[in-house]
Amino acid sequence: MKTLIINCGSSSLKYQLIDMATEKSMVQGLVERIGIEGSILTQKIEDRDKYIINTPMKDHKDAIKLVLEALVDKENGIIKSMDEIGAVGHRVVHGGEKYSESVIITDEVIQSIKDCIILAPLHNPPNITGIEACQELMPNTPMVAVFDTAFHQTMPKEAYICPLPYELYEKYGIRKYGFHGTSHKYVANKVAKVMGKNIEDLKIITCHLGNGCSIAAIKGGRSIDTSMGFTPVAGLMMGTRSGSIDPSVITFLIEEHGYTIEEVDDLLNKKSGVLGISGVSSDFRDVIAEADKGNIRAQLALDIFHYKVRAQIAAYAGIMGGVDTIVFTAGIGENSSLTRRESLRGLEFFGFTINEEKNSIRGKIQEISNEGSKVKIYQIPTNEELMIARDTAKLVK
Amino acid sequence: MKTLIINCGSSSLKYQLIDMATEKSMVQGLVERIGIEGSILTQKIEDRDKYIINTPMKDHKDAIKLVLEALVDKENGIIKSMDEIGAVGHRVVHGGEKYSESVIITDEVIQSIKDCIILAPLHNPPNITGIEACQELMPNTPMVAVFDTAFHQTMPKEAYICPLPYELYEKYGIRKYGFHGTSHKYVANKVAKVMGKNIEDLKIITCHLGNGCSIAAIKGGRSIDTSMGFTPVAGLMMGTRSGSIDPSVITFLIEEHGYTIEEVDDLLNKKSGVLGISGVSSDFRDVIAEADKGNIRAQLALDIFHYKVRAQIAAYAGIMGGVDTIVFTAGIGENSSLTRRESLRGLEFFGFTINEEKNSIRGKIQEISNEGSKVKIYQIPTNEELMIARDTAKLVK
Repeated sequence: MKTLIINCGSSSLKYQLIDMATEKSMVQGLVERIGIEGSILTQKIEDRDKYIINTPMKDHKDAIKLVLEALVDKENGIIKSMDEIGAVGHRVVHGGEKYSESVIITDEVIQSIKDCIILAPLHNPPNITGIEACQELMPNTPMVAVFDTAFHQTMPKEAYICPLPYELYEKYGIRKYGFHGTSHKYVANKVAKVMGKNIEDLKIITCHLGNGCSIAAIKGGRSIDTSMGFTPVAGLMMGTRSGSIDPSVITFLIEEHGYTIEEVDDLLNKKSGVLGISGVSSDFRDVIAEADKGNIRAQLALDIFHYKVRAQIAAYAGIMGGVDTIVFTAGIGENSSLTRRESLRGLEFFGFTINEEKNSIRGKIQEISNEGSKVKIYQIPTNEELMIARDTAKLVK
Repeated sequence: MKTLIINCGSSSLKYQLIDMATEKSMVQGLVERIGIEGSILTQKIEDRDKYIINTPMKDHKDAIKLVLEALVDKENGIIKSMDEIGAVGHRVVHGGEKYSESVIITDEVIQSIKDCIILAPLHNPPNITGIEACQELMPNTPMVAVFDTAFHQTMPKEAYICPLPYELYEKYGIRKYGFHGTSHKYVANKVAKVMGKNIEDLKIITCHLGNGCSIAAIKGGRSIDTSMGFTPVAGLMMGTRSGSIDPSVITFLIEEHGYTIEEVDDLLNKKSGVLGISGVSSDFRDVIAEADKGNIRAQLALDIFHYKVRAQIAAYAGIMGGVDTIVFTAGIGENSSLTRRESLRGLEFFGFTINEEKNSIRGKIQEISNEGSKVKIYQIPTNEELMIARDTAKLVK
């Protein structure tokens, strides 16, 4: 079976077609500027030139129509007919407390995703748009929703209840949900496999460090805590997001310096983190380059970033009563040897040393701790699309 | 020399008179309801009945006048004349970035404390009122300011810069300051002495758990991080304060549920934490009693509280590259064997076991880890007043 994976943003759409027999991604595509002038589709297939379509797309339905055309295109496509697509897996950001696993999409599921819009106002609406567009264009193909929050639904109450009046949880659903669940689940299962261990026997810390960053504590295969919270703003410092800060900073900015709530939102989401401290960029590569040239604030951004990762790793080792393996994944985690080294500096007393030669190689599944380390350190490229495809295929069967 | 210690709140005033020759507190007093109907002074001297004065006090000057009268009272006082008071040490909450040590109070110092009012609007004004009232009544007695923030001024930038636009630090002084510095400094020095070690050689984690709670990481005698932040709201869950939460919760409450900024402030400071979760009380003793009776939310409040302490201890062990000793102090830390046990549960892999018999004894300076533990656990009653008295005496000499 071939599974189509759809990940809709507000004006973009990422897709992959995965052959479940080999688990290989046959095609990767990106549609940008949906509903904006200059809409563009870019499709990549191994050993072929990029296939680019510039054509106006007024909405996600237009975009998905074009995706399907590109997939079956005689010259540039990869399948003969849409019938080859056995199922569609949709990434959905917020499943609230209702979904602790992926689920076949029904009207009721769509309603539940709509009910969660208040919790993810930027993410769930385009996810729904993508689902509904696919349903219209492929009415007989089964669809599955895979939630970013689902894997973390195993957290115990002491991890997910916020230290606020309990009524805010009961009335408004204010609690820690956690995100990046598909990625954390994928790399946790992968590392257990690579180690030749049963995931039930392991205490794993997974560090998903990309433009968004989160760390999860995974004990016996279950997420027991994660650093993102009610929203993806919480936890670690990120590219442009602040991560956790003293909440009084917000009331201070509003009361003493006249910030509006919209300005605060914008500040926390788009102007903080690595960009806010460095003043250079939210892209780690740019910031590292600037720091290497002696830019003090770029260096400070890196120092704070690594400091917070280090503290979070240690905290999760603590709450699990120890740690067997620490995994780095996603854009920064997979590629930055600096980040892996600096995020672990000082934590060697947990029982590991880093193999600097291995650590200097990027984007590969490998152990980067030295042989004989009690705690194993790994870098493992994440593959959320494969995880979505697996869940989709399993449910459709 | 005898040193008078003054700690002014908005409508209250605590005082002690300490004999520097013996470092013994000769008298402890509390004035309540200053400027409110029903003003009352309560003074305690060892082996004597409490001395209580009920008389209207319109302001802090009235209160301090009465304190001085109570101290020299023929029947109920402890000194013959005010001239016996060699110096006055004032607790001041916020010294901003200017003061990393205690300082003799001059006009310039008072101005600096006033400059910090914006950072501590509830605390610095009564502190200034207390200083000015004392100056008027004891114009020839030297006065010293001892800041709650001073001890933490040794934190490195990666610990104190918030992951927000750097300009917010430069323009508005938004950064981590940390509080309870006098207490952390006292117990850190005390534990080194009790262990017979040089503080420069130790990695110490001090847990000040009272109605306000903070933990500090103290390496080589210097605070390198602490859990409170820009304000005393950040960090751990407390009696009525939330501690750190996802900052987006605030924008969510305002945007989606119509909270005003004043309501949010009130919520974070007075309705959250142990009170907010338990729905019972902010007093740990009440909450423990309710949990023992089977109250699920009271139990949850305790579970969250201990969980956060545990994670913070582990994080600080991580950033120091290990830990030699963990100290519990203040109301809960000194008295709750449950809190000490639960806050350390699962952290035994750092290298300790708890001696439950010792842990069941409260309010005593003692090691509560078993002999042979690599990491030593202590409970040490704090004594901020003595610390203030020592700093005061040293500066006045």
